[in-house]
Amino acid sequence: MTISPLAPEHFPDLPTIAGIGLATAASGMRYQGRDDLLLITLASGSTVAGVFTQSDTAAAPVIWSRKVADTGKAAAIITNAGNANAFTGSRGDKAVREMVSSLANHLDCKAEAIMVASTGVIGEPLDTAALLPYFAALVNDANIQGVNASWHDAANAIRTTDTFAKGAHASCIIDGVAITICGIAKGSGMIAPNMATMLGYIGTDAALPSDVLGRCLRRANGDSFNSITVDSDTSTNDSVFLIASGKAGNRPVADADDLALKDFRKALAAVMNDLAIQIVRDGEGATKLVTIDITGAKDKTTARKIGLAIANSPLVKTAIAGEDANWGRIVMAIGKLGIGIPSDAISIDIGGCRVARDGMRVAEYDEAPIAAHMTGQMIDLAVSIGDGLGAARVWTCDLTHGYISINADYRS
Amino acid sequence: MTISPLAPEHFPDLPTIAGIGLATAASGMRYQGRDDLLLITLASGSTVAGVFTQSDTAAAPVIWSRKVADTGKAAAIITNAGNANAFTGSRGDKAVREMVSSLANHLDCKAEAIMVASTGVIGEPLDTAALLPYFAALVNDANIQGVNASWHDAANAIRTTDTFAKGAHASCIIDGVAITICGIAKGSGMIAPNMATMLGYIGTDAALPSDVLGRCLRRANGDSFNSITVDSDTSTNDSVFLIASGKAGNRPVADADDLALKDFRKALAAVMNDLAIQIVRDGEGATKLVTIDITGAKDKTTARKIGLAIANSPLVKTAIAGEDANWGRIVMAIGKLGIGIPSDAISIDIGGCRVARDGMRVAEYDEAPIAAHMTGQMIDLAVSIGDGLGAARVWTCDLTHGYISINADYRS
Repeated sequence: MTISPLAPEHFPDLPTIAGIGLATAASGMRYQGRDDLLLITLASGSTVAGVFTQSDTAAAPVIWSRKVADTGKAAAIITNAGNANAFTGSRGDKAVREMVSSLANHLDCKAEAIMVASTGVIGEPLDTAALLPYFAALVNDANIQGVNASWHDAANAIRTTDTFAKGAHASCIIDGVAITICGIAKGSGMIAPNMATMLGYIGTDAALPSDVLGRCLRRANGDSFNSITVDSDTSTNDSVFLIASGKAGNRPVADADDLALKDFRKALAAVMNDLAIQIVRDGEGATKLVTIDITGAKDKTTARKIGLAIANSPLVKTAIAGEDANWGRIVMAIGKLGIGIPSDAISIDIGGCRVARDGMRVAEYDEAPIAAHMTGQMIDLAVSIGDGLGAARVWTCDLTHGYISINADYRS
Repeated sequence: MTISPLAPEHFPDLPTIAGIGLATAASGMRYQGRDDLLLITLASGSTVAGVFTQSDTAAAPVIWSRKVADTGKAAAIITNAGNANAFTGSRGDKAVREMVSSLANHLDCKAEAIMVASTGVIGEPLDTAALLPYFAALVNDANIQGVNASWHDAANAIRTTDTFAKGAHASCIIDGVAITICGIAKGSGMIAPNMATMLGYIGTDAALPSDVLGRCLRRANGDSFNSITVDSDTSTNDSVFLIASGKAGNRPVADADDLALKDFRKALAAVMNDLAIQIVRDGEGATKLVTIDITGAKDKTTARKIGLAIANSPLVKTAIAGEDANWGRIVMAIGKLGIGIPSDAISIDIGGCRVARDGMRVAEYDEAPIAAHMTGQMIDLAVSIGDGLGAARVWTCDLTHGYISINADYRS
């Protein structure tokens, strides 16, 4: 598999987090010569929060994990790559129960304390007999320093069509106590925001009640994972987990709006933002990263909706692939939403150059600098649709022959 | 330009219609060596109806023609291919007024009796000076037997990325009087239904009040042009015109629901359906025509919405391009709508073979006959989502390297 031309130079150096154990294994269920199982263990007293796909056909592991996350506590998250255990009916529920029961035995905890994430082919029954034999070793490895896996190993174990492992981290302070946040994610195709997208795991040693974690997670999610799209298709298995071991020993702040959490929230947003953009950078077939800024909308929701309409338009995305400054397609994408934006209110900038203002091309239009910008890897589009205060930024990639090649062949 | 592999063998033999004149010309504005102007003239006493794009950024000619169509009467429709006159602000309105004023002079009628349709690049000012010099000859030719253009010439003059001219016709009876219906259309990319898509012109010699025409048109439009998609992108210029010269001399039936119109409505639906499917057959890069039947929905609107979610999914369309029976992506596309369809209610057939029932793969699943069906040019998907009476059929094409090549190069 060719690595995306937009990949970061290397995987970042992620520190271990006290109270969070990592272990990986290779079941060989679908992929050969690589890990496809990831166990994350949480020290007792940890808190958790999650956001999950809003798909009507959410997979069995999503339905299970949503319930566990709602309790705010968990002992572990088990993830398998290669089979999504989605649209598998009662057989899929049974597979989840077999996985959590087996792990609960090894971890000596309740089955209801274990979250599950699966990613891969939809509709194929998941054969747990191929996975369960690895659980004892995973539990054993997860908490032994030196034996346990790195965040890099973990990020590699959850890949499907991803061409590179995705990780990010940040440090922050809560009440004078140093806090670490590390995150990994996977995702490349079937990426469209709907509350949560893809698989993401963010771990921290902060001590925070689960409802505070949940509020912080949902807020940061809106501007990160919910602001990206690769192909407008929403997965059945999207899940983002935020887990906090509490080992940093800070005062557990009881209110998400407490100023003591300002730095934490900012750091969490940075990690999630970084991971979200890495997913777009690994968008199937992507050769360009497109940043779209919308301003002047009546509110943020409207701004994001317009940004995503542009970001999802196959004609906008193919024009960018062809390095064609075809801004007429941006106009089309705004118009097709049908939410009452008057043409006269629309202004468009590409690469910092104004191309259209007040519903028409600017008189001084010069395509040369815009055409030059289109040849780069980083494409910046800015659209103003009025004088409202609503603004949003979304990210997408171009739509290329690579996307067709990957998806006409790979069964996901 | 390579002709679509899904193109009909030849353009149908379309008869002239008394009271409807056709003339074409080559302005050379964008295309060389082919016609790009079409004038359709209507005998006095003709009635008209139209459906137009619901885009917020509807083009100047659409805004103008919608008003003319609302009066139920028109003397002519002028169409230019190559420049959409969309997002051109007050300059675009001025261009429309120049075109209709000039034509009104030549035709000796009111400017408000002339409809305009434009198709092509968005955002570029339309230089009417390049078009107006051809109007006198167009008017002269349109009504002279032997000099005027054929429907085939007309269909050719309105093409942009179309690889073949699209026409269809039908005969019917109103109160014992023989009626002819002929239609032409253009469209290949930026095709997504939103009340109207692309350009379509349906002419008949029937005598019918404009409100009856309008009701017949909107009804037939729902099951034809509003039930197709190529790429989910809605044009700024979509327009469908139904014009009736009245020369057949039938009794002008005053009620669209009158049984006397049953045959006419059926024939109109057949013509519009034929044209709509031809647009999908000419979908940019298309190699397969996909027919999707949805049944068991609570109503027709819901059924169509689900059908279009499947028809618009890049992952479903690339799987079909790759001849991969990846029905898990159909499940994903239904789920992402988020309208509350329980997985357990979903059954899926491909090429007449049941692949999934009651929310999971059938026990007797055999991929061989399905894989064989996927290698054909005609792909049939059927999805049942419950026991409601709502049903709909939609059409789409596959998403191939051809779509990327066309749209990364062509400026539309």
